[in-house]
Parts: sequence; C-alpha cells; structure tokens
Amino acid sequence: MKKFVYNFKEGSAEMRNLLGGKGANLAEMMRIGLPVPPGFTVTTEACSRYFKEGEKISQDLLDEIFEHLNELENATGKKLGAKKNPLLVSVRSGAPVSMPGMMDTILNLGLNDESVEGLYEATGDRRFAFDCYRRFIQMFSEVVLGIEHAKFEGIIESIKKKKDVEFDTELDDKDWEEVVKLYKELILKETKEQFPQDPKKQLIMAVEAVFRSWNNQRAIIYRKINKIPDDLGTAVNIQSMVFGNMGNDSGTGVAFTRNPSTGEKQLYGEFLLNAQGEDVVAGIRTPKNIEELKDLMPDVFKQLVDVCNLLEKHYKDMQDIEFTVEKGRLYLLQTRSGKRTAQAAVKIAVDMVKEGLITKEEAIMRVSPEQVASLLHRRIDPEAKAEIIAKGLPASPGAAWGQVVFHPDEAERMGQQGLKVILVRVETTPDDIHGIVAAQGVLTSRGGMTSHAAVVARGMGKPCVCGCDSISVDYSNEEFKAGSIIVKKGDIISIDGSTGNVILGKVKMIDPVLSEEFKELLKWADEKRRLSVRANADTPKDAEIARSFGAEGIGLCRTEHMFMAQERLPYVQEMIMAETGEEREKALSKIQSFQEEDFEGIFKEMEGLPVTIRLLDPPLHEFLPKEEELIVEINELKQKGEKELLKKKQEILKRVKALKEFNPMLGLRGCRLGIIYPEIYEMQVKAIFKAACRLAKKGISVYPEVEIPLVSNVNELKVLGEMIQKTAKEVMDEEGIKVDYKIGTMLELPRACLIADKLAEYAEFFSFGTNDLTQTTYGLSRDDAEAKFLPHYINQKILSEDPFIVLDRVGVGGLMRTAVDLGRRVNKNIVIGICGEHGGEPNSIEFCHEIGLDYVSCSPFRVPVARLAAAQAALKENMKK
Amino acid sequence: MKKFVYNFKEGSAEMRNLLGGKGANLAEMMRIGLPVPPGFTVTTEACSRYFKEGEKISQDLLDEIFEHLNELENATGKKLGAKKNPLLVSVRSGAPVSMPGMMDTILNLGLNDESVEGLYEATGDRRFAFDCYRRFIQMFSEVVLGIEHAKFEGIIESIKKKKDVEFDTELDDKDWEEVVKLYKELILKETKEQFPQDPKKQLIMAVEAVFRSWNNQRAIIYRKINKIPDDLGTAVNIQSMVFGNMGNDSGTGVAFTRNPSTGEKQLYGEFLLNAQGEDVVAGIRTPKNIEELKDLMPDVFKQLVDVCNLLEKHYKDMQDIEFTVEKGRLYLLQTRSGKRTAQAAVKIAVDMVKEGLITKEEAIMRVSPEQVASLLHRRIDPEAKAEIIAKGLPASPGAAWGQVVFHPDEAERMGQQGLKVILVRVETTPDDIHGIVAAQGVLTSRGGMTSHAAVVARGMGKPCVCGCDSISVDYSNEEFKAGSIIVKKGDIISIDGSTGNVILGKVKMIDPVLSEEFKELLKWADEKRRLSVRANADTPKDAEIARSFGAEGIGLCRTEHMFMAQERLPYVQEMIMAETGEEREKALSKIQSFQEEDFEGIFKEMEGLPVTIRLLDPPLHEFLPKEEELIVEINELKQKGEKELLKKKQEILKRVKALKEFNPMLGLRGCRLGIIYPEIYEMQVKAIFKAACRLAKKGISVYPEVEIPLVSNVNELKVLGEMIQKTAKEVMDEEGIKVDYKIGTMLELPRACLIADKLAEYAEFFSFGTNDLTQTTYGLSRDDAEAKFLPHYINQKILSEDPFIVLDRVGVGGLMRTAVDLGRRVNKNIVIGICGEHGGEPNSIEFCHEIGLDYVSCSPFRVPVARLAAAQAALKENMKK
Repeated sequence: MKKFVYNFKEGSAEMRNLLGGKGANLAEMMRIGLPVPPGFTVTTEACSRYFKEGEKISQDLLDEIFEHLNELENATGKKLGAKKNPLLVSVRSGAPVSMPGMMDTILNLGLNDESVEGLYEATGDRRFAFDCYRRFIQMFSEVVLGIEHAKFEGIIESIKKKKDVEFDTELDDKDWEEVVKLYKELILKETKEQFPQDPKKQLIMAVEAVFRSWNNQRAIIYRKINKIPDDLGTAVNIQSMVFGNMGNDSGTGVAFTRNPSTGEKQLYGEFLLNAQGEDVVAGIRTPKNIEELKDLMPDVFKQLVDVCNLLEKHYKDMQDIEFTVEKGRLYLLQTRSGKRTAQAAVKIAVDMVKEGLITKEEAIMRVSPEQVASLLHRRIDPEAKAEIIAKGLPASPGAAWGQVVFHPDEAERMGQQGLKVILVRVETTPDDIHGIVAAQGVLTSRGGMTSHAAVVARGMGKPCVCGCDSISVDYSNEEFKAGSIIVKKGDIISIDGSTGNVILGKVKMIDPVLSEEFKELLKWADEKRRLSVRANADTPKDAEIARSFGAEGIGLCRTEHMFMAQERLPYVQEMIMAETGEEREKALSKIQSFQEEDFEGIFKEMEGLPVTIRLLDPPLHEFLPKEEELIVEINELKQKGEKELLKKKQEILKRVKALKEFNPMLGLRGCRLGIIYPEIYEMQVKAIFKAACRLAKKGISVYPEVEIPLVSNVNELKVLGEMIQKTAKEVMDEEGIKVDYKIGTMLELPRACLIADKLAEYAEFFSFGTNDLTQTTYGLSRDDAEAKFLPHYINQKILSEDPFIVLDRVGVGGLMRTAVDLGRRVNKNIVIGICGEHGGEPNSIEFCHEIGLDYVSCSPFRVPVARLAAAQAALKENMKK
Repeated sequence: MKKFVYNFKEGSAEMRNLLGGKGANLAEMMRIGLPVPPGFTVTTEACSRYFKEGEKISQDLLDEIFEHLNELENATGKKLGAKKNPLLVSVRSGAPVSMPGMMDTILNLGLNDESVEGLYEATGDRRFAFDCYRRFIQMFSEVVLGIEHAKFEGIIESIKKKKDVEFDTELDDKDWEEVVKLYKELILKETKEQFPQDPKKQLIMAVEAVFRSWNNQRAIIYRKINKIPDDLGTAVNIQSMVFGNMGNDSGTGVAFTRNPSTGEKQLYGEFLLNAQGEDVVAGIRTPKNIEELKDLMPDVFKQLVDVCNLLEKHYKDMQDIEFTVEKGRLYLLQTRSGKRTAQAAVKIAVDMVKEGLITKEEAIMRVSPEQVASLLHRRIDPEAKAEIIAKGLPASPGAAWGQVVFHPDEAERMGQQGLKVILVRVETTPDDIHGIVAAQGVLTSRGGMTSHAAVVARGMGKPCVCGCDSISVDYSNEEFKAGSIIVKKGDIISIDGSTGNVILGKVKMIDPVLSEEFKELLKWADEKRRLSVRANADTPKDAEIARSFGAEGIGLCRTEHMFMAQERLPYVQEMIMAETGEEREKALSKIQSFQEEDFEGIFKEMEGLPVTIRLLDPPLHEFLPKEEELIVEINELKQKGEKELLKKKQEILKRVKALKEFNPMLGLRGCRLGIIYPEIYEMQVKAIFKAACRLAKKGISVYPEVEIPLVSNVNELKVLGEMIQKTAKEVMDEEGIKVDYKIGTMLELPRACLIADKLAEYAEFFSFGTNDLTQTTYGLSRDDAEAKFLPHYINQKILSEDPFIVLDRVGVGGLMRTAVDLGRRVNKNIVIGICGEHGGEPNSIEFCHEIGLDYVSCSPFRVPVARLAAAQAALKENMKK
C-alpha cells in the first residue's frame, strides 16, 4: 500500500515534491542532527487524493495519520489532549514550491477544556495555558471554521475596556479564561456547534483545512501569477509544539544567513523575547535585531550562528530560518532558501563561489535573469534635488522625464518628432496604446497596480505611476493640479515608477551601473554561453549603452526612426510627395546626408563589431500626417482662405488616401517598398557605405550588415541583393577603399521560414523578426490583440502566456527550427540570430540556444539579462547530457 | 558532334522540343506519306546556342545548314539562286509550343536579279516571277532589315496612282519590275547597303532573323501571358516553295478537320484560288468556303478530305491544316492541333471517344478546365428584348443587372443591404475595390481590356464593360448620358461583359446550361476523380445551383451574409450595442429565428449531403456604419437639433471607435469572437440544430458540420467544441430527435497547420481556408496587395503568379502538407478539404489531389471546372505511376 504519511526521520531534502518544501527541510535538518521538534508530514499525494475523492479523507489515511500521531506521542512521552502533560502540535501547510503567506497555519492544536489544565500543571503558568488555549481557538476558528478575525479581537477589546487596560500583556489568567468562554459562545452562535473538544477531530479538521486552503482564492491567484501548476497539492506538517512564550529565557525569531537586501555575509534577522511566532508577524511588539541575542542569550546566539553556518554549507545557499527558544533551548522550525533582492542574489552567488561553496556554474544558475533586469532600469539620481509634487503607486519601475501631454494622439505626434513626453491621463484604455508607445512614461490619477496603464507600461518596460489621486486632471484646459501647483501641457515633469514619485521639472537621472559582482558573474556567464549577445540600437547613444553592457554587435538598427526626426520629416514627406524624379532625387539626397551621419556615429561606437542595418520597413503613410488631422486642417484653411497651403494640404491628403491600407501590417512595407520605390533603398545603401568607407579610411574597422526586411519570396532578396552589391561597389570604387560587409534578410513571415533554403543561396545572415513572425503565424495583430482580447485569453487560460512576450515554441518556434535546418543545409556558415523582443526574454533565449542560433539581439538594457540567460541555457543543456 | 539540322525525313512528331511544333509535324506528315514539299529544320538547340554565343552563328552550324541545303537542291533538282529553274525556299519559325502570329516568316527566298529570270523561264510567267521577287524583297526587308511595311506599300500605291488603277492584280510584269527597282533603291537608302543578292547570305540572314524574333516584344509578351518558358527557343524550317499563285489550278487555304466553333464533325475552312499564303492572312480578297473546292477541284478536295481523315486518325485530335495547290497538285505545309472554343473542345472530345479514336481518359485530359469555365457564366437570354444604349469593350464575361451607383462607398453600402448594383465609373482605381466587390458588375467609360476595372473584375469573376466611350459620366449629378438617354442613380441597367453591351432596364438572363456532351464528359470525370467536389454557398438558391452542377455537399456556408441582409442588420446592430444581457438576448433571439430559416432552406436543398457551416467570422465593426459616415450624420443631426437620434448615433460612434482595429484581418474575429462573445456562437449553434431537428423530424436527412474559424490554438477549439456539443445536445433533447453532425475547424493560419495534430484530437474535419492562409503565410493583405503592388510584382517577375489565384505550393502548400500529415497521424479518418478560392482553380486542385485532401469546395459555377480538374489530377497521377 502506498504510504501517505512520513515521520520527519524518514524524509530528506530530496523529497520536496512529496513532502513539500517545509516538510522536506524539517526532515533534512533532523537528518543532519539539528534540534527540530519531532513530527510527521502528510504528503502532497494525500492532498491530491483528497481532491480526487471529492474532498474526503479516506479511512486508511486516517489510520495512517493516527498511527504516526501515536508514534509522536511515544517519542515525546506526551499525549494529545491528555489531562497531564499534554502534547500540543502545530499544523502547517508546505507545498513543493514556496508559496509564502498563501497557506494557513494552526498552532497549539490539542488543547481543550481538560488539556489546558494539564498544560497549566506542566508549566505551572495558568496565564500561559489559557493564553495558548485562546490563541488556538482563535486560529482554529478562523482557519477551519471560517469565522471572522475581527469578532475575536472584539471580544478581547471588550475585556480590556472592562478592565480599562491597553495591552494584552496586562490581562491575567482570569481574563484569558473569560476570553476562552466568550470565544466558545461565539463559535456556538456562529456555527451552531460546540467548539470540538476531541483533539483527534481537531487534528483531522485542521489537516482538511490545510488541504482546502490549496484552492483558496489567494493561493490560486498566487499560483497563476507565479506560474505554479494547480495540481501539485500541498503537504501538511504536524509537529510537536515548542513555546517561545514561556518567559524571558524563551523567544522566537527569524534569521537570514546573509543580508537578503544587500547580500552582505552577516547574520540578519530579528526576534522577540517571550513570544510565539504569530506575535512577530502581527507586528504588535517591535522585534529586536538578531545581534542583540548575543548579549541576551550568548549560548543560544552562538548555537544559532553555528546552525546558520552548517545550514549554508549543507544547502549551499543563503537560508531563511525560523527558530524558537524554549527555556534557553534552541529549536529550528523551518529552513528554506531565502528570498533576496536582485542585488543580493548576485552578490551572494559571486561570494559563495569565492568562498568555495558553489561552482561558477552554480552561481550562474542561482541568479534569475528576469530578476536582474530590475538592476538595469534608469533611476533618479539620489543626490539630485527633486520637487516631489505628488505620489502615486509605483506601477512600473524606472524613471523618465518629458513634456506633459494629455492626449495619446498628441503624444504620438510629438514622439514621432523625437520629443520626450509623459502621457498624463485619468486612466488609460486600449485606445491610448499608441500614446503610451510614444511616451517616455505614463502617469494616471486613477487605477491600481493592475490597471490598464500599469499592465501595458510594465509590458513595454516603461516607467508608470498609477492611481495618483492627489492630482486632478483637466482635459479641457489641458492641465493637471497637484495641490496648489498647476502643470500645463508642455511643462516638464519627471516620474519615478519605482517609488511612485511625481516631480516637477527635469531631474537628473542616472543610468544603471553594474556592480563589480554583477560584472564578475556576467564574465563567468560569457565563458559558458554559446549564444552571442547583440543589441537593438538605432542611435549612437543606444549603441554606446549597449556596448557598455557587453553587447557584441548591433543585431538590429532600425532606420525608420532616423526618418521620423523632426528636422528630417519634411524631406521625407517631400520625397513621398515628389512628382518628378528630380524632386525625389533632391529630397532623397538631403535625407541621405542625415543617414550618413547616423550610420557614422553608430559604426564608430561599435568599432570592430558587426552592425546590422535594416533598410526602411514601415509603410510610407506612417511618415505623412493622419487623414483625420488633415481634414480638420483643410477645413480651417478653407475658412481662412489660405489657398496655397490649402492646395498643398489637399495634395497631401490625396496621397494619404492613396497610400491608405486596410491592413498596414500586411501591406506595402519592408522590401516591398524597396521593390516599388528602389530609389529609397538605394539611397540608404549609399549612406551606409559612404559612412563605412569614410571611417575605414580613418583606420576604424566597420562591419556593416545590410538587412532586407519582410522577405517572403526569393526574388525579392535576389533583386535587392544585387542592387546592394552594385551600389556598394560603386560607392567603394568612388571612395577608393574596400569594406567587409554582409547582405542578409529578416525572417519574419512564415513563408520566409519555409523557403529558408532558397533564401540561404542569397543571404549571408538571417535574423528572426519574431514580433512580426508571431503576428503572422498566429494571425494576430499585436496592437489590436493586446488591447482587446489577449488579456481575456490569458485569463481564460486559452493561452498560457502572451506569445509576444514568451516565444511560442511550437508554432513560431517550429517555423524557426525549420528555417535553421533549411538554411544551414544550403549554407552551413550562415549566421542566424533573433532581433524580436523575445531576444531579451530568458525562456525564449533558452529556445534560441536549443535550436542553434548564433546570437540574440535585445534592447541595450537587457543585454546583461540575455548574457546570463544564454549562459543558463548552455549550462542546462550540459546538465541534460 | 551534336546535330543541329534535321532533314524532314529524319524527324517525327515526338521530336517537337527539338524541331519545334511545325518542323516535327512536317516531318511526321512526310513520314506517313503525305505530300509535303521537302526541306529541313534548324533545331531549337541551335537557337539557344545562337543566344548563348552572343547572337552569332558558328561556322559549324553554317556548314551543317549548307550541307542540308545541298541535299535539298539535289532532292529537288534545283539550285538556290540559280539562273535556271532556281530553288526557292520559305523560312519559317516553329517553337515547341504553338505561338501563332508571334514569329516571322519569309517566302520565296533565293530570288535575286538573276534567279528571278530563271523563275520566269521556268514558269513562263514574267509577271508571276517579278511579283514573287517583290514579295520576297518586301518580306525580307521588313523581317530581316526592319524597314517599315508602309514604305513598301507606298511605292506600290505610287505606281498604281501613276497608272490610275485600283488593284494589285491590275499591275503587269513591267510594273512589278519597276516596283522591284524602287524597293531596292529604298533599301539602299534605308540601310546604306544593297539588297543582298547572294542567296546563301539571304538564307543565313533569314535564319538569324527568325532566331532573333524569339525575343521580339510580341513574342516575349505572348510567352508571358501564356506562361511559356523563355528558354525554349525556336526552330527554323527551310522548305522548298510551292506556289498557289500559278493560275486558277492553284490556290492556298486553311482547313480544320472539325468545326472549331461548335465541334461538329465536318470539314471547315477557306481557300483562295491563285494566291499565296499571305493573301489569305492579309484579307484583301475574301476567301471561299472550303466546300466550294469540291466543285472547283474535286480531286484535290477528295484528296484533302482523305488527308484530314488520315491526320485525325494519326494525331487523334482535330487538326488545323495549311495547304497549297500548285497546278492541281496538293501540298501540305502545316498541321497542328486546332484551337477551338470550349464548347467545341467538349464536343470533339466526347465525339472522339464515341468514334473510338480516343479513350475516356484522353477525352478528359483534352479539355482545359479553365476554358470550360467560360461555359458557366450567366448570359443574357438571346430571346429577350434588350434596349442596347451603348457598347463598350467586353472586358470580363458574364452578364448582370442592378441599380446604377457611381460611388464605391455607396455600392458597398447598398450591396451590404442585399441590393444589386452596377458600379459606373469613368475609370476605377484601387480605392474603388470595395465597391467592385459589392457590385454585380462594373461599367467604365474609359480604359481598355487591361485597365484596372477589367483586371479586377476578371479576377473576381464579375461581368465588366470597359472603355464605353459613348457614355458620359457626371459624378456631381449622379447620372450618365448615353446619346439622348439619361440614366440616373438608382435606375436599373444590365451589362453583358461577353459582348460589351449596355442595356437599359433589367433583361432576362439565363443561367448556363450544360450541354449533353459536357454532362457526359463530367460523368466520366466523376468516375476517375478521387477528390470530392463541394460548393461554397450561403443561400438556398446558391445551394440549388451548386447541386445542379454536381456539388456533393456544401464545403463553406458563410453565416455573415445572413447577418448583413437589410432587414436583419438593425437587430445585429442592436446586439452589438446591447448594454444589458436582456437587450442582447432579445436581439439575438430575433437573429436566431432568421438564421433558422436560412439553415433550413440550405439543409433542404442539400438533403442527404454534408453542409459545412462556418460560425461568424468577420469583426463586429463590419456590421456597424463607417466612422466617417457617422461623423457626417452626427454633424447634420446637431444642426437639425434632433437630440434623441443624435444621442443614439453618438453611442454607435463610440462603439465603432472602440471596435476599430489597426489590422482587422488579424484582429478580433473568427473564433476569437466566439470566445469573447460566447452568446453569438451559441445562438448560431442553436439555430443550426433547431433547423436540422425540424427537418429530421420530417424524414429529411441532414448532415450539419459546424466549423470554427480562425483557430490558432488548441484551446479555442476545445472550449468552443464543448460549447457546441453541449448546445447541440440541449436542442436535440428539447426537440426529441438526434441528428448526425460533425465539429471541425478551418485551417487558415500558419499556426493552425503547425499544430494540426493537436487540433485533430478535437476536430472531425479540417477545411483549409487558403485565402487567409495565403495572406498570413506571405504577410500580405489581399485587399492592399492586389490593388497596390502585386501587379507590379508579377510584371517584374518577382512572383510568377498571383498567389491568391494559383495556390503557392511551396509556402502555403508546404503548411497544408504538414497539416495533413500531422492531422492524419492523430486521426486517420479526419475529413480534410479546402474552401478558399483556390478550391476552384485547376492547378491548385491538382495540388490538393496530390497531398491527399478529401474534397475541394468552390463557387457553384465552378463546380464543373473542379470536377474536371480533379479527374485530370487523378489521371496525371496514374500516368506518373
């Protein structure tokens, strides 16, 4: 027969799945000789069985539990519910994956009207006995019977009022006896039943309550957020009680073996004298720093330090320990790997390597790439003076400044002109997405941490302050008030999404700096990873940041941003509106000189490293004003009678209408532009090679990689590739110098992946554009879906993840795998990378490693994340071998 | 050494690729003993070599040609360019694929100032000799030297003027001698060189000219239109001349072995007495019916009939023969399979089976499915009275009637209301596409057969009359004038795209009827094909037509058209606007009763056959008014002060804005609607099963197949499949009867194909929606691409075909193949079909057969095309085995 209950003596740390984290660690500590109060664990399988059998505990499980209870009674020489020297136990949940605060705990179980007297007799402390009893009744009633906490607190309050005292400590044994009486009356009233006096019944009710708590709302939500499977189940730990509240030689506390905030190697924690665990949690008394224990109980302190050292050596990780001191004797109630900040995680991992505790590989695996991302946000310079005018919720980390705008359309327009804006709204809706995209950050006066603005901004990695109800937004006057301060459209503010602060004016911000430990960890990661890491960067500034974070090249330089800049847009529009070849040439040559500057700057920053430049990708109408705006403008001009401008605007409107598309995402863009308007791509190629040659002449080594976007057909690549070769040759001949370069293509359409063998005949590199590839593979417009129905899909579990965040391995990934196979079959030296947003997401990076890509490319600030994730992917692969 | 020249005696019909069609058939006729003037053929390989060697004829080829010339001279006992009894030859092109009129021909080569006297001497006819000579000079000069035709005609005109005569026949030998003199002077003037007197030089120049003509503009365009590879090359046939212009016992003509228009078995053709071939072509003299030859030359006629019978039996196909009679002696100059109308093709194929000439299989392969499509258009009843008010170009076949509209937006609006409209424009642009889609037909006053309107209408299979310059369109008054008749918006006209007629009012039209032969051919096809053929039909009327054409089920019944009907749209809008569940329920229940009627009608028509019903697919905003229109309306209402309606319209506008999407094709549509608004799909499923149960109770057997569109994820199918099962069961329980049904999904997104194994766990059938699958695989919006850049892509040969017309076998087809494999691996009985437009296109049907689909589904009028194409696919496969 299957075994559903384990004595602590029978378990070990490896049995986490069966015994839960807490149970397994209690068993492990006992195994290595640490002072753990005896007990046993009901397994997670028992929990699953409980749900399978319709929330019923079967007789054989009952028998097994009582058998172990019997064993425990024998071991302690005490009996549950006995009149003399009774055994008391705690009942705690413990899932295989740590779910702090999610499950419920019951202490002092086994007390009843008889055994409370036995406890008094055993301890000689009547007040203590009745205090324990009332605590048990209260916890049991809340957790098992579901009676409101406030009702119990009300009873205590009424007693204190009657006695006219302020603190619980001022109540004596009689008072607690009275409380117990009133509690029992309350229970009878609420449940129509007496408080259960049978300790075995108490035990089973408690076990069932723990089982059921696996499916309480908090637990379900926690699992959802943390992607923990619903079918793991929780174990239940039944452990004989020790008491920290038996006088000043007793106490209870929590200790971390290292500082969980900074990672410093020092005992860290706090404790309370003469208290039980929940007093620490309740926060009624202020706990003391663990250092003070040294003076109060030097022996216990020394023992605790030894225990900490032993546990760290044993678990090879920083531990979070719960302990109780009963009459000078130390007991350990829990140990687990301690939660820590990103900074601490990095420091601890690196320190432990130096201490010889773990290997470099283990250190790399120990730090979560997603977590270290938080170390890479811009923040407000702590030295800077800041006039904080309001404070909201810190909804999306990082800091930003910009001109205040109230309307998303305006944010978009200004953003396209290269202006920095902060979008200020009462709250945002899906219709505002384009404004959020264009803004540096978002501030709303309404909505919480899960409001639309918060979710979207976090998704985009933009700072956001939400629910800032101390400001009042006035759309019609385009201003907001913060107290007596009025901030108008165009005024500059700064926001800090990590603190919620809203600051008047532009504050000095500092770019994130990598700690020495982080640098060291990344260096180790670099030694282990096979994937190269590049960055997506469109400006010399971005390139500089990327390089400082260790980027080994630019994987995607988008040229459209260069077209959008305010001083250039007029020429771009001229080019689009040109009617004669001459007009078009003129406009293009002006744009070319701008582009040359851009490329020169980027090449210089990336000296010696490859720079992949994508030729113009978006549809031309994105460079023209919006139709609705033009109509309004034209109406105004008509009224003013400005004929010349009117005519011009009407012509633009005509062109806008002609360029209008039903589905611009699937329209005349990417290489289709290059085929239809060859002069645009030619100009870009000229600019690339002029810039490259100019630097090459100065002895600066440049490696341009010209990338053709949106290819779905081999002839597109062939025709444009020939144009690039011809143009490059012309420029290099003219400049009298040769530059190494590559021609390649983005794979961002399913068909491109399916014909990768043919493409590989003309391409020297491939770069997966997984944003568009996800859109086309799923037939899903990201702009529309994320605003309108993807959240619903994820909520309903139709999709487990947003495929625009975590790469879809089956569909999109399947196409990628096909493309890699086909491409390498024809050209085994072809360089293959990824430049979609997935290139900075750890799970997706792991997949890229698995299918044998050469590099990932991500935003500059995510380069360290990618370096770490790439190393982890390589190590995981080695482990599998 | 490779042989580049073949005597006719050495060749045969099988050597078509090497000798060209003409050369191979001349050789074949000679082989079977028919009277063919002797000659030889320079091969297509010589032509390819000529281009490869930079348009030069190598010495060894020259040697080979002259060797064969020598042989020919020996065989005929004449010598090229000889003073006595000179040999004259014709030089004609002949490609492996028939390219009528595309290549150039030179007759009477070998004449010069000496041999013309020899010809005179040999024939005793000086006029004849100099007429031959001037003809030769003229043809040679036009074809080889590139001198304009008109210049030669001008010389003849001047002579006629001088003599004051009207016809060439009135000119005598002196006149022609004079013409020859003037011709030679013209040549010297134009080319600065004398007309070549060396006959060998003439020959080689002519051969080169034929080679070069392979790449003349006409030939290139012809090949492009007819998809003939550019690298085939042409052969050159050098044949001793025979003369049809040697008196009234001579003549020349063309004969078809059967009537190429009707297919009747009768000698068909025409001839000219005393004439050379080009006189027939030139059309100066009206040829006589071939029947008249019986009286004029009974022996020759009998011989010709025998030859025709022999050739038909030999080639087992209707032949198109060129013949010349020289002094009572019949010579055959060419035979080839005759071009024929669709009607004739069908009749000839079926008759030949009955005559025992060919097998049923051959008959099936003999008829082009694309060609028979023309037999399936609606046309105007020839018995009907029609007031023809104008005539334009017959730009897209078929006939239609409807209310005149001038603006595409209005056409769309009226079309959505179920009204029939004819869109009348000066010309159309890509912006008008939605209007063309909505209209029954298109009439333009400007633009030719390749204008936008013509191309688009043909693509959509809609009737179109173009370039109708006798009407004048007045947009501002919304009317057009045709002579004195004014046709206003809303007036009804009919158009006949097969004749170009524009008719006032509604004319009686007749649906196409299948001839008995066609029915028989299709019956044979049915016996051979493995693919089942279904139809896409949304109404009982369409279903009826489909069934009459042999559809074996409905492969796609789109339910959105049912939502669009004028009397239903208000309820649909109510449903979309509903704020309370009650309001929505009310609107939905009204729509449900409409849907029940629709389904009942279709099920009844398709009794005993499966009907695949696709649940609602388009985004909801398609059912609401357009944003721009609402804005205009709201402004008007504001001015009128109609507050209540204003408020309603403003609410609709708000909803329209909320539903607006950047890329509706990739947005909230298909099963995503079913997940987000489950009540809509539930209503549809209820309607399907109510209708089905109602008929089942009457003993009518129905096979509904409920189809879920736009699935990209297995959970979509799972969740909606469960809903369908549950709802179906409820309805059937309620109605007390069971109905067999299937649940399945469309595969129209790349990801659906890639997870077909998972989908097959929940789907009983798959249907490839290749329109959307092509859009997403290519990342190409059809609406945008076909209007804006696909034509350019096809012109530039970036794409060889429009992938929306001919299925892309590599990309889209690759995904289909994957899906079939994956799907059948999990569920080997799964039924798989295709319902995109490709389902009616022969090349695509062949692919569907190859990858093992179970059925194709196409528009009702293409069902016969598909039946034939499916049979051909099966036969082709057998041939390969």
